[in-house]
Amino acid sequence: MSKIKFFMVIFAFIGLISCKSSQLKPTAMPQTGMFKVEILYPNGEDKTFDMDYYEKKHMPMVASFLGENLKFYEIDKGIAGRTSTDKIPFVAIGYFYISDVAEYNKAIGQNIDAIINDFKNYTNIQPVIQISEIKKLNTLILNN
Amino acid sequence: MSKIKFFMVIFAFIGLISCKSSQLKPTAMPQTGMFKVEILYPNGEDKTFDMDYYEKKHMPMVASFLGENLKFYEIDKGIAGRTSTDKIPFVAIGYFYISDVAEYNKAIGQNIDAIINDFKNYTNIQPVIQISEIKKLNTLILNN
Repeated sequence: MSKIKFFMVIFAFIGLISCKSSQLKPTAMPQTGMFKVEILYPNGEDKTFDMDYYEKKHMPMVASFLGENLKFYEIDKGIAGRTSTDKIPFVAIGYFYISDVAEYNKAIGQNIDAIINDFKNYTNIQPVIQISEIKKLNTLILNN
Repeated sequence: MSKIKFFMVIFAFIGLISCKSSQLKPTAMPQTGMFKVEILYPNGEDKTFDMDYYEKKHMPMVASFLGENLKFYEIDKGIAGRTSTDKIPFVAIGYFYISDVAEYNKAIGQNIDAIINDFKNYTNIQPVIQISEIKKLNTLILNN
């Protein structure tokens, strides 16, 4: 085989391998069976929430406690209720997508003081905490 | 150029192209700037919720009203509150990931009777509806 042919085979092979790894390692994709810890900050009179601090300090700190159990995290800003004139139910919602709930609880328990002491730096809201299992994801609509 | 060389170049080229398109078209990936309609079903005494019907009938029906504005949808089943002994705040949460809120409201408005009439088929819970903007997604943790 000539050198040129040899390098072309290598080139094609590398192309396919790198393609495969990019499909297998999505960066922020929810998956069925994954767990989600959702921290909801209810709206209300005299409630304050510093989104900048939450984004830049609080969530990265908590994320750092979770290690490889954390797949990715997300921050949502509430913009409306059922209609644009309804009250917004939650000012903000944070999400940790994790693979193991017991491991999450252990990591949070070990760092609970640091987490609770940081609340006053960005909000006066008592958050609601929900742990869910992702039951279904539907993406078939994309093929339309 | 020989025929073999020609086909090898084509082969390598197709490999790279298909790789690129698989990176550009994730199937169920939240993205910053995308909007999320979240339908939360609060837990409570005498509350009922038929997850099977919700998964197989209600959510697919509503999704069918949303067209290409809908990127994907997700269904979560509540499994715990802050600790495993706390009450679960929400029995279930449904999410529509969309690109345009006004278009979503229009589509729902046009089909509101079908949606409301279907509630009694799976639940007696009055859902809370939250519309949020995805402010931040953090996936850096994956590189650790």
